[in-house]
Amino acid sequence: MVIIPKGAVIKKAEVSSRSHRLMTELGLIKPATNGTFYLLPLVQRSVDKLVAIVEAHMREIDAQRLTLPILTSGELWKKSGRLGSAPNREIMTTVDRHENLQILSPTNEESITSLMASLSPISYKQLPLRFYQIGTKFRDEMKPRFGLIRTKEFIMKDLYTFDGNETNALDTYHEICGAYEKMLRFIGLTTFAKVEGDAGLMGGNLSHEYHLPAAVGDDTLVTCEKCGHAANLEAIPEAKRKNCGKCGSDSLKISEGIEVAHTFLLGDKYSKPLKATYLQEHGLTVPVVMGCFGVGITRLVAAAIEVLSTDTDIRWPRKLAPFTVCLIPPKAGSKEEKSGGTALAEDLYRQLSQLPGLEDDAVLDDRNHLTIGKRLLLAKRMGYPFVIVAGSRVADTPPLLELHLVESGKSLELQPSDIISEIRKHLNEEN
Amino acid sequence: MVIIPKGAVIKKAEVSSRSHRLMTELGLIKPATNGTFYLLPLVQRSVDKLVAIVEAHMREIDAQRLTLPILTSGELWKKSGRLGSAPNREIMTTVDRHENLQILSPTNEESITSLMASLSPISYKQLPLRFYQIGTKFRDEMKPRFGLIRTKEFIMKDLYTFDGNETNALDTYHEICGAYEKMLRFIGLTTFAKVEGDAGLMGGNLSHEYHLPAAVGDDTLVTCEKCGHAANLEAIPEAKRKNCGKCGSDSLKISEGIEVAHTFLLGDKYSKPLKATYLQEHGLTVPVVMGCFGVGITRLVAAAIEVLSTDTDIRWPRKLAPFTVCLIPPKAGSKEEKSGGTALAEDLYRQLSQLPGLEDDAVLDDRNHLTIGKRLLLAKRMGYPFVIVAGSRVADTPPLLELHLVESGKSLELQPSDIISEIRKHLNEEN
Repeated sequence: MVIIPKGAVIKKAEVSSRSHRLMTELGLIKPATNGTFYLLPLVQRSVDKLVAIVEAHMREIDAQRLTLPILTSGELWKKSGRLGSAPNREIMTTVDRHENLQILSPTNEESITSLMASLSPISYKQLPLRFYQIGTKFRDEMKPRFGLIRTKEFIMKDLYTFDGNETNALDTYHEICGAYEKMLRFIGLTTFAKVEGDAGLMGGNLSHEYHLPAAVGDDTLVTCEKCGHAANLEAIPEAKRKNCGKCGSDSLKISEGIEVAHTFLLGDKYSKPLKATYLQEHGLTVPVVMGCFGVGITRLVAAAIEVLSTDTDIRWPRKLAPFTVCLIPPKAGSKEEKSGGTALAEDLYRQLSQLPGLEDDAVLDDRNHLTIGKRLLLAKRMGYPFVIVAGSRVADTPPLLELHLVESGKSLELQPSDIISEIRKHLNEEN
Repeated sequence: MVIIPKGAVIKKAEVSSRSHRLMTELGLIKPATNGTFYLLPLVQRSVDKLVAIVEAHMREIDAQRLTLPILTSGELWKKSGRLGSAPNREIMTTVDRHENLQILSPTNEESITSLMASLSPISYKQLPLRFYQIGTKFRDEMKPRFGLIRTKEFIMKDLYTFDGNETNALDTYHEICGAYEKMLRFIGLTTFAKVEGDAGLMGGNLSHEYHLPAAVGDDTLVTCEKCGHAANLEAIPEAKRKNCGKCGSDSLKISEGIEVAHTFLLGDKYSKPLKATYLQEHGLTVPVVMGCFGVGITRLVAAAIEVLSTDTDIRWPRKLAPFTVCLIPPKAGSKEEKSGGTALAEDLYRQLSQLPGLEDDAVLDDRNHLTIGKRLLLAKRMGYPFVIVAGSRVADTPPLLELHLVESGKSLELQPSDIISEIRKHLNEEN
């Protein structure tokens, strides 16, 4: 981090993305077109784990999952004012056989508000309401880059909240921010930065962003060294970039971040033009007060890898590792295989797969034509938290296997039953 | 079912869809545009349950989940020959800012084959391979209809298999068909029909379809009364529609079906032009032999409702009901509420929510401003398998609640602990 140059807008040098390179090298993603990717089975597992974590945190705040269509009527976007006469080149569109313009939704305020309008006015008794979805979004980026960090097609969780007045909406806003922070900590991403965002982007009155600090981050964050207040540089008017917006100090530091979540208090920006209203207790019909809250699912997985990995090895927040345990049996034709080492490893694998919390979360690397050394190297590079190797002492009496604790770099030689106890101990510590 | 008119192509009368009407009336879906729908929270739960069932059945056959991009390069479709000079109006497209034509994928043979080609040649040791995805697909239907049964945007599971030769690919084909049949039976949809499909559609050599019998089905099925052989009418050449293609009998019956799954043995139709190959044991590099296997997720949910419901009430395969149990506490301000009936109901709800197999699968209908009668009617129409009512006898000593077994139409008056035993008994019977 460096002191912000007085008045200067930061110009970042091109940096290369560790997550992009490692995820490609290790077979987690593969480019399809410029800006679209195949999510291969291992990273799909991480995405699925993250989705489950997000869903659990949404349930905690009584948010209900639904699905809004990807194709959204262009007419709706004209009504909200977001599709004007000047083309917005980031918005992808298609025209159906009846010549209707459809947006490939990058975000769904129009869509959810239109749904609420179709039910309007609802009763004040039905508020507050919270709906979210998890699905594919599109943005025609000028320059997609850094692998899953900036793509034309990505998976996002978007939550929309509806309250009866500004006060309740603000309470909701803070509650959701709290849920986001709890979720990031639960995942193990404790180094996130919460900064003021540019509320104008969505037309609302309050906005925050959650960033993971990383050199490849496209956003520049300005943090006051005195009071800790932080904002996205873009959210600070040119004339106000010399002093902290909160305490006035000129001790400002800049850093780069990858935005993984964004929150907006929208007010009636969408509910008013699209007529999403509710009936108050005393008979007045007024627009609902909205908030919207996004989490970039695929981006968060990549950003986590970006900030945790080394130059050569992927490291995961443990809860997002594709598998928690990887077990490597002896090479085909080896003396360890012949003396029962493979059968022993497979038996241990079955036992591990039945441990509470480890169901379907252990993998047996049965590419037995590869040497153990080669597979161990790959497993460490892939960053599975626990790697078990049935090596040369698997035929000893009693048999000994290697347990590699990949995060700490330690390894132990243990009997099968002790390996199970050791892993169980670690799993319990985590919860 | 009627005897097939000699040589005549069946012309179906317009019929109306029960699932479309009931799902709209009861707040499961809402139209967005012509052919796109909002999936509201209750049906989202059914979709999520079906997705979990599909995933479990895919794991059983060692298929790995991945994600192929929705945007697929138009160039790739030209290579496979499926995007010719004549526009196919069912295919939706978009052009990005760099003037590249992108398909909104209706199906992903090109995409997965291109992925395999980028890894080619793989080793014979890596075969067989099975990859599936669950996601949104697009088809610009001339006439979307019947709610979720025929839409422009839908959720589909598509599985692709890769084998080394025709014999193994055929074994795989039969294995996947078996998995599909097991899955449909597991869901409780035992009345499905498996019929020969038109393999030419995908350019393959063998194809089957799984249908649920329903008057609104867009497909006409021809079944031989003698040998049981069945085929989609479209798959039978005009000249061969008089006799069974298998036994030659002229006792043919026709019926209508909704296609919920489709299987294709593709051979090298895609792997050859797109160069997805593998290296044989003796050094020859040849195209892999493919199969593809689809399940319409949103369509299957709607089709199940279509075939199981009455004119007024939704009925679900129990495993797809949005909630298995619905509990209705007393009306606000009622004497039952005042004498502790609401607290008792809420306590019972908490106990039920902790029953194994019922976690997050019971709902408390706390719209307490509505009468019990109104809520019971809605709960029965919604088809929750078990509805519990804290009615007038909840204040008795001992307290009695009504347990409505919605599928059978029976109801019982029981103490809270007996309600739990009764529901537990039913849940156990099912597994």
